[in-house]
Amino acid sequence: MKSATTRSTTALLLVDVINDLDFPGSAPLVREAERMSVRLARLSERARRAGVPVVYVNDNFGRWQSDWRKVIEWCRRKDSPGRRVAARLTPKADDYFVLKPKHSGFFSTTLDLLLRHLGVETVIVTGIATDICVLFTSNDAYMRDYRVVVPRDCVAANTRRKSELVLEQIREVLSGRTPSSAGIRFGGGQNGGTHAHPRKPLRRS
Amino acid sequence: MKSATTRSTTALLLVDVINDLDFPGSAPLVREAERMSVRLARLSERARRAGVPVVYVNDNFGRWQSDWRKVIEWCRRKDSPGRRVAARLTPKADDYFVLKPKHSGFFSTTLDLLLRHLGVETVIVTGIATDICVLFTSNDAYMRDYRVVVPRDCVAANTRRKSELVLEQIREVLSGRTPSSAGIRFGGGQNGGTHAHPRKPLRRS
Amino acid sequence: MKSATTRSTTALLLVDVINDLDFPGSAPLVREAERMSVRLARLSERARRAGVPVVYVNDNFGRWQSDWRKVIEWCRRKDSPGRRVAARLTPKADDYFVLKPKHSGFFSTTLDLLLRHLGVETVIVTGIATDICVLFTSNDAYMRDYRVVVPRDCVAANTRRKSELVLEQIREVLSGRTPSSAGIRFGGGQNGGTHAHPRKPLRRS
Amino acid sequence: MKSATTRSTTALLLVDVINDLDFPGSAPLVREAERMSVRLARLSERARRAGVPVVYVNDNFGRWQSDWRKVIEWCRRKDSPGRRVAARLTPKADDYFVLKPKHSGFFSTTLDLLLRHLGVETVIVTGIATDICVLFTSNDAYMRDYRVVVPRDCVAANTRRKSELVLEQIREVLSGRTPSSAGIRFGGGQNGGTHAHPRKPLRRS
Repeated sequence: MKSATTRSTTALLLVDVINDLDFPGSAPLVREAERMSVRLARLSERARRAGVPVVYVNDNFGRWQSDWRKVIEWCRRKDSPGRRVAARLTPKADDYFVLKPKHSGFFSTTLDLLLRHLGVETVIVTGIATDICVLFTSNDAYMRDYRVVVPRDCVAANTRRKSELVLEQIREVLSGRTPSSAGIRFGGGQNGGTHAHPRKPLRRS
Repeated sequence: MKSATTRSTTALLLVDVINDLDFPGSAPLVREAERMSVRLARLSERARRAGVPVVYVNDNFGRWQSDWRKVIEWCRRKDSPGRRVAARLTPKADDYFVLKPKHSGFFSTTLDLLLRHLGVETVIVTGIATDICVLFTSNDAYMRDYRVVVPRDCVAANTRRKSELVLEQIREVLSGRTPSSAGIRFGGGQNGGTHAHPRKPLRRS
Repeated sequence: MKSATTRSTTALLLVDVINDLDFPGSAPLVREAERMSVRLARLSERARRAGVPVVYVNDNFGRWQSDWRKVIEWCRRKDSPGRRVAARLTPKADDYFVLKPKHSGFFSTTLDLLLRHLGVETVIVTGIATDICVLFTSNDAYMRDYRVVVPRDCVAANTRRKSELVLEQIREVLSGRTPSSAGIRFGGGQNGGTHAHPRKPLRRS
Repeated sequence: MKSATTRSTTALLLVDVINDLDFPGSAPLVREAERMSVRLARLSERARRAGVPVVYVNDNFGRWQSDWRKVIEWCRRKDSPGRRVAARLTPKADDYFVLKPKHSGFFSTTLDLLLRHLGVETVIVTGIATDICVLFTSNDAYMRDYRVVVPRDCVAANTRRKSELVLEQIREVLSGRTPSSAGIRFGGGQNGGTHAHPRKPLRRS
């Protein structure tokens, strides 16, 4: 077993991407999520190479007795609408995961403690759905004084309009940045620094 | 996968029993824990048969990337001083687990939400070590208005004196009960009721 | 001193209404808030008469050493743009208050514990600003399984469009209701019941 | 109103010293607390002069509607057994206060956020009662990676034995220090540094 010794000022959060998306009317979201997953897979790969921690922040689907492996198997099962997204974004051995019981990745989980343990100051929030778990997690990150970056092409919602409205809110209320994923540069250093938010000083009030 | 639908007013918490106990001077604690594990295995089996949820509340040993299965394998490895305790108390398929990053099972974890989800009002706290994680978890349970029961023969510390002092404190400060495990009766009903604390009304202030 | 013995399934939350609104460009928000305060004063009065707890959930303005009375005096000072709103919504002796250090009324405060102490299941969230503290507080209430009601004429934001977008989100994501304040009926019973959400069963997962 | 701009690596916490101590059998605790209050008044004065924040972490006595001034008045009323302790330890204008609803000063309060806001790394925990709120608060401080110092002559319990047992636990389990109050040196610098724990590096895991 490896312990979490690498420190990094940035972390990449993947919210609810391991997801069966199995509910009535999920077709538009599945399409959006599949498109998004191509870009997010690329961003995750770049993060891993730069030493930036990749953290799966994922629903437990009300299955409190199941471990992470079972959640993955469940979402990749043959008749799971989310199977292609889950396959494309399958976690690697060194990735972290936090099972969340509710909408925000910070609510009743160990996420905040993990991020502080890693020395994180900026979170890059990605995943599904923009107007629900991505927004709730971004809000909570902001209240805990993390800088928030939401790559606008690495989130998915039922409609593009919903994503746009949330991205607007993240810029205005959370002082967050919403670049395209291609615009995110991970530093090459050992600490996996990012230039995502070079100017704003960290305020941890 | 099964979801957590069974409700029960009582839950049995096993604190840090999956543990390699690999630190200098652990021999007395290992001996105490091995003795204790025989009785705790019996109590856990009775709880499962009565439909009372068995919840492993276990340290992640600073290994944030590892899942529960890896933690178990690690603690059962050949040169782990805690291997016999971990083997005797190996979780069953329907048991719950909560990985805790610090001493109290409630700190930065989903334990409180899980217990409320299950309808729990009384927690039976067992495990290692009486004066550290068992006490911290019991204190936090009490502050959250759970009734606390600590079976005096299902906890282990470095010395018996330490356990006795903590049990005294649990009785005096937490209004907790510290019966022997043989004295704990699980109700036969579907709800896995217990008679551990029949008289005191629940105050959830 | 009175203790909090009255129980009620509904509570009225006034978010950041005691506010100096002293920042560049606050004029539109001040105008909106003043209009809103007339209706909110009426709603608060009806709540008090029906025995529904009125809870001020208010920013501490970074003044951690100050008590609630000083915050009120500060916001009612002569050159405070928010003085008229604060005057119209001055708390009464039996109202509750929770000083919040961040955007959500639930973050690092005792609000959740107070609401449970009172037996509250439905929160009526009102105040300033719709897209910031009202939304953050509503989201957090929803995650804690409270039913959320946001009277659409008792919230204020910089622009009406912002309020409308947030109200839409509260309906769609939080399954919340957004009636006009005139449409809210407080029950006449001792428990101050409300008919705000008669159909949905409480799920406290 | 003053804002909290002074930063300090140390804070002095006074737990439940504003207290009416009005319960059957409180006489021994009142005697202990009165003796203790002489030394604690001196320590608080030294802290204030050195620029070390003095934080009252105090029970709300189930009176959720009352502000801090009313709590003080209540505990200093003529027939309050705790009136002499409360009088001797009356807060000064620049002191902070945190009303706590339960035993630990960190549970459902803003204390952790306030301490981080001030830049605190070491807490000096004092007050009433050693084996209840002082211990709960110290445990929670330790889990949040604060260094814990409990001056052994600035805490009070029903019996001296109880205090001694808790002080032993604070040394062994929390790696805390338990010097006499006379042995605590506050640095003279602007940051109110203390030499209470000069050697141990801060680990915020």
